[in-house]
Amino acid sequence: MTDGQRESLAFSTYTLDSEDDDASDRISKDEITLMFATHEKIPKKDFRHEYEASRDVDSFFSMVSLDLDITETSLFGIVVRMVEGLLREEPDCSPEEALSALFTHDSVHHFNRTVQGTSQTEYGSVDYDQSWICAFASMKNLKKRQVSIARLKHPRNLGETSQEIRFIIIVLAPSEEKTTRSALETARTFATLLHEPEIRQEFLDCRDKVEFMNLLRLVELKYCKDGEIEECAADTGSSESLASFEKPEDRQGCPIGKGVWNDIKRRAPLYFSDFKDGLVGRHTLHKLISATVFLYFACLLPSIAFGTLNSRNTHGMIDVRKVIVSQTLGGLIYALFSGQPLIILQTTAPLALYTQIIYEIAHSLHVDFLPMFGCVGLWSSGFVLLYALVGANRIMKYTTRCVEEIFSLFIAITKVAAALESLIHDFQENIGPDCGHNVTTSEGEGYGEAAAGCQLDKALLHLLLLLGTVALGMMLYNSIHSPYLDASKRELLADYSLPVSVIFNSFMGVYVFSMVSLKRFDVQTGPLFVPVELGSLTSTAVVTAMGLGFCLSLLFFMDQNITAAIVNSPANKLKKSSAYNLDLLVIGIINGILSVFGFPWLHGTLPHSPLHVRTLADVEDRVDQGRLYSIVVRVRETRLAAILSHTLIGLSLLLLPSPLNYITQPVLNGLFIFFALISFSGNQFYERLVLLMTEQSAYPPNHYIRRVPLAQIHLFTFCQVLQLAVLCGLGLSAMPYLEMIFPIVLLLLLPIRHKLMPLLIDPKYIRALDAAHTDNH
Amino acid sequence: MTDGQRESLAFSTYTLDSEDDDASDRISKDEITLMFATHEKIPKKDFRHEYEASRDVDSFFSMVSLDLDITETSLFGIVVRMVEGLLREEPDCSPEEALSALFTHDSVHHFNRTVQGTSQTEYGSVDYDQSWICAFASMKNLKKRQVSIARLKHPRNLGETSQEIRFIIIVLAPSEEKTTRSALETARTFATLLHEPEIRQEFLDCRDKVEFMNLLRLVELKYCKDGEIEECAADTGSSESLASFEKPEDRQGCPIGKGVWNDIKRRAPLYFSDFKDGLVGRHTLHKLISATVFLYFACLLPSIAFGTLNSRNTHGMIDVRKVIVSQTLGGLIYALFSGQPLIILQTTAPLALYTQIIYEIAHSLHVDFLPMFGCVGLWSSGFVLLYALVGANRIMKYTTRCVEEIFSLFIAITKVAAALESLIHDFQENIGPDCGHNVTTSEGEGYGEAAAGCQLDKALLHLLLLLGTVALGMMLYNSIHSPYLDASKRELLADYSLPVSVIFNSFMGVYVFSMVSLKRFDVQTGPLFVPVELGSLTSTAVVTAMGLGFCLSLLFFMDQNITAAIVNSPANKLKKSSAYNLDLLVIGIINGILSVFGFPWLHGTLPHSPLHVRTLADVEDRVDQGRLYSIVVRVRETRLAAILSHTLIGLSLLLLPSPLNYITQPVLNGLFIFFALISFSGNQFYERLVLLMTEQSAYPPNHYIRRVPLAQIHLFTFCQVLQLAVLCGLGLSAMPYLEMIFPIVLLLLLPIRHKLMPLLIDPKYIRALDAAHTDNH
Repeated sequence: MTDGQRESLAFSTYTLDSEDDDASDRISKDEITLMFATHEKIPKKDFRHEYEASRDVDSFFSMVSLDLDITETSLFGIVVRMVEGLLREEPDCSPEEALSALFTHDSVHHFNRTVQGTSQTEYGSVDYDQSWICAFASMKNLKKRQVSIARLKHPRNLGETSQEIRFIIIVLAPSEEKTTRSALETARTFATLLHEPEIRQEFLDCRDKVEFMNLLRLVELKYCKDGEIEECAADTGSSESLASFEKPEDRQGCPIGKGVWNDIKRRAPLYFSDFKDGLVGRHTLHKLISATVFLYFACLLPSIAFGTLNSRNTHGMIDVRKVIVSQTLGGLIYALFSGQPLIILQTTAPLALYTQIIYEIAHSLHVDFLPMFGCVGLWSSGFVLLYALVGANRIMKYTTRCVEEIFSLFIAITKVAAALESLIHDFQENIGPDCGHNVTTSEGEGYGEAAAGCQLDKALLHLLLLLGTVALGMMLYNSIHSPYLDASKRELLADYSLPVSVIFNSFMGVYVFSMVSLKRFDVQTGPLFVPVELGSLTSTAVVTAMGLGFCLSLLFFMDQNITAAIVNSPANKLKKSSAYNLDLLVIGIINGILSVFGFPWLHGTLPHSPLHVRTLADVEDRVDQGRLYSIVVRVRETRLAAILSHTLIGLSLLLLPSPLNYITQPVLNGLFIFFALISFSGNQFYERLVLLMTEQSAYPPNHYIRRVPLAQIHLFTFCQVLQLAVLCGLGLSAMPYLEMIFPIVLLLLLPIRHKLMPLLIDPKYIRALDAAHTDNH
Repeated sequence: MTDGQRESLAFSTYTLDSEDDDASDRISKDEITLMFATHEKIPKKDFRHEYEASRDVDSFFSMVSLDLDITETSLFGIVVRMVEGLLREEPDCSPEEALSALFTHDSVHHFNRTVQGTSQTEYGSVDYDQSWICAFASMKNLKKRQVSIARLKHPRNLGETSQEIRFIIIVLAPSEEKTTRSALETARTFATLLHEPEIRQEFLDCRDKVEFMNLLRLVELKYCKDGEIEECAADTGSSESLASFEKPEDRQGCPIGKGVWNDIKRRAPLYFSDFKDGLVGRHTLHKLISATVFLYFACLLPSIAFGTLNSRNTHGMIDVRKVIVSQTLGGLIYALFSGQPLIILQTTAPLALYTQIIYEIAHSLHVDFLPMFGCVGLWSSGFVLLYALVGANRIMKYTTRCVEEIFSLFIAITKVAAALESLIHDFQENIGPDCGHNVTTSEGEGYGEAAAGCQLDKALLHLLLLLGTVALGMMLYNSIHSPYLDASKRELLADYSLPVSVIFNSFMGVYVFSMVSLKRFDVQTGPLFVPVELGSLTSTAVVTAMGLGFCLSLLFFMDQNITAAIVNSPANKLKKSSAYNLDLLVIGIINGILSVFGFPWLHGTLPHSPLHVRTLADVEDRVDQGRLYSIVVRVRETRLAAILSHTLIGLSLLLLPSPLNYITQPVLNGLFIFFALISFSGNQFYERLVLLMTEQSAYPPNHYIRRVPLAQIHLFTFCQVLQLAVLCGLGLSAMPYLEMIFPIVLLLLLPIRHKLMPLLIDPKYIRALDAAHTDNH
């Protein structure tokens, strides 16, 4: 092929391409045209950690498309020669396609995308390394990556920034290739290998291909070993995220209460700022209001849901009113006296299950339920206070991201399970020959009911409202990523997605579908603050209560601390320090008080606590290699949102039973699923699960994808799935007594992560996967 | 501020920025780093058509940030001086932010994004215009666009490709700015103004700011006038999309049948290839199968739906079986003998309404329904044949994109309205004190019904299945844009979204929710092909039938031709020519035959016809300035998919009534809404409606956004909305007789577009908005 032929071949390609293209019509051949250029510094390939680097080199070794001492003079001629060599085994790709991908869309020959070495001159300007250039492109029909290196016999001037080229590297990659093997990533590898002038000189001195390839292997090994020393140092250190647990004070033995005292010493000087930070600053008042509204609904609505559940399980002894009082009281005490007021307390599904078990045990021991409940609560509070005072939190330094994410997915699953159970229950009640029997328990409001028939309409409306609540909530919550309206209106919609969805769907349920009479909750009347009669308990009951209390205390300990660890995650960029010991002490005291009056217990919960942090945060969108990431810039660490919202919750007692009971079970179930869904975002375990069904070319180029081979990533995910399955098996067990040992199994996750998993997966990969990265990516 | 201070200021910015950034950690200050560069040719600004160009210049005039004869020597010093001048009135933006946006993320000073002039050297390589450079960036907190021009006293070497810089242009734009005013677009304007060396020399010669600004205005005017001559030529031509209507033959008078004969002459030589093209070629068989399956479901299911509707309106005289026979017969004849076999015939909602009106008129005239129906049909066929033979299609050259899109949105709205009407009817039937009365008409299948009570469960299940069909269908249809699975599996899911959704939801309705007995259709038995007894009609009836037939013939004429125009749109890149006259002739013959036997009528429908084209097309994704567009590359223009699918539809008569009647009304209603939703994509009228609630910075940079001011775009859209509203008011009218004049109103859209709208909106903008662009963007 002569140069002339080649030129005409390329011209015909471009002519072909430009047929459908507006832009190129307006660029005529000889006149001045405009060139839009972007420049971005990229890091050199880290051969030590980015495991694909060596594979890139290996793939080059497998085909050796190396051309030494080329005498061609034009850039175009050289590239045509290289491309023809590369595509010999790619029948689906023509050299024309490759050329049109490599060069700018035009008959003039200028590379489209390049990597070159640059250095800073002493005057502060940029100096290009004009002796080598790496050009790359993605192609649709390519089967595998292709790399070609050419060494010119004499330096050639091939255009601006390439005036004395000796080396040209061409990389072509399939556009469906996985992220870490994309054309840019492969180009980075080879650019890194050639970027040092001394090494390039050695490549120039190679006499033949064999020498060249050997040298390439040597250079690769050199880069692989670079930095090995720092690596060893890193190996001996413990996981990063837990530095905050190991205070110097903690190390000197463990005198009683020392940890709590240190927490108080650390947080007390910041107490005033905990109020000021909620009032002062740009957008702060707006954030405070939206956080207050969010917390009001996010705490009140589950209180209603768990109130209904507890009321059914205890035949009304713990009802919606008690749960709301408990939430108000506990929430206010915690907001005022805790060390980390961003954590939000709530009663939860496991606690409701415990309550049910206690009810059954009390029945079988022939004692009253409320005294038994109070006694268990007091025992567990005692244990929790003990943990706080002896500084048992120190074992929490072993909880890493791995354990936290298993736990938060577990919580999400229990929420979905509770909602589905309630839905299925509604269907079962209304299907089949027995279905009329339960109807008598409904309150019989509404009109024109088909007496004792199957009220399938209720079950169907339940499903509709549940789906409606989830769909509307998610739509509004995600509207922030849409291009509609403007940024501030979208933020408003997203901030108020929860109340809007609940109120809208409650309205639909009660008014639009008024012909279906949905079941509404009712509350007890009478005095609230009556101490339980502990004296009525038998000694057997007191001993049994101690056993139950111990298990319960472990649940408080784990749930509270994991929640705190997630809130204090480095990604949230909190500036005021954590206070694990103090917080646990406050939890113990709160639950002690609640137990005395027979109120339901509380502890820190997911995802409300991290969502509370989010609503008070300034978030910024960052683009990294074409991906959008939301990054927390700063958080208004204030007690005010929690105080205000819990005051409002207290005032909501006045709305009992009506209109609060317009919020029916279907909407509350939808709300649970909504919470479960939004807790997925930012959960790396969940992200890795999604990767399993994602195309490799769409993988995000984040730190663990770069540093850990895919098989190891999936193995790690698989280990987590196993642990999650065991947790779910126990936590959602149909046998309620199994649930008692659940906190112990939760504790077992720590040795599994630190002793068992390193046997399966290289510890350095576990570290990369388990790193608490500052920016969630 | 001294240079030293400035340097340190910039350094501190970068240090601040790099805190959270992995990449920059790995770039240390003095060694060699890697620079990733991209280059793209961009068209010069078209001052004549892109109306924002002059506004860009005006906004520069409003502030005149012009700095002549700078003596600074370093790039950094010059830029700091320019930026400080620019940001004087922007208190929210610091010069540090501007600098970090303008330069690459590094302490070394290299512009991030630039536009420069290039030309081709005689050796084919690229020559940069090294005497000027335009750098630009987007900034978040900026209030308005800022442009600064600096002229240096002496040429300065400011780095590679900028070795003798005399002019520097800096553009900063808010990142929320609308697309046509983005930093890149503004940079393009100024780069265009400065790109010619002669003009630049004049700018060099200006002695002061006033001279400079005057010259700038002169240059702007020069570019605005350039090309005015071609523009005038374009003004006189008619709309582009309709060239195909104006055949040279048509112009010589209009002898009877000439148009049909020309169509036959043109299409006959391609007849064999209409079969071959469905079998030969890459992926063709796969496409043929998926098109056949698509058409089978897309035609069979509406036949069932309209069959049920007609059966209700005519008390069973036209039922599901007749509609299916009609579909088979008409579809096969059309597929075999038409000129554009990609058009798909169906019976439609307006036709069903006509049928109902005829039923009522027949009743009031005391004649039998079927003879009356046949008589109307024969009259209308006569008129349609007449239109075909005299070449009445020529008036269709006045239907432009504007009219076509109003019509296709109208069709979508009628579909949604029909579905909602059926849903609401179901609710009304089951609410309130009267609700039991209609229950007796249901077939009473299923078990354990609550006898005569309100069967609200049916209405609720209707809503659930309708939503389920739409949601599952849309999810699968859109899965092609997701990153999950791989490209071929996603395509499979999207191709079969319709049958999967229908079958799944029918299964849910009949089996999972078996406790609710949904109404299923039933069919008549007995002989099918019985000619109607025309002799039984009175003369009054025959005359009335002629009036009805005339209106009906206009409906056939408009619907068939607009459908054909949409199928033949340049975006579909069909190679075989259109055949409007022949097609109309075949439609007339088909409906004549159908009328004789009292079968429902057919004509070309939306969106089935363009979707048929899509399923047979090779589609390619193109990225244009960061937006993804799907572009049809080629279409397999074959008769086979229509022939095969209609044969299968004929065979489906064997599946009547069961299992075909497992597909219940809710699923069919969901299907209508699904069709309406997918017909929105690619409809520019709909896109412009969406723009009304879209943030301006997210506007697509397509041709009309560049060429038409926003207010005019919205005015045009508003005109279309008005016309659509009138159509809907008539077409969906509660007074069925109003519906009769609907075809006439449809015809009136043409003079509105060509006579009235140009009075409101500048014809050159109408042309830009109404252009049938090849690539839909």
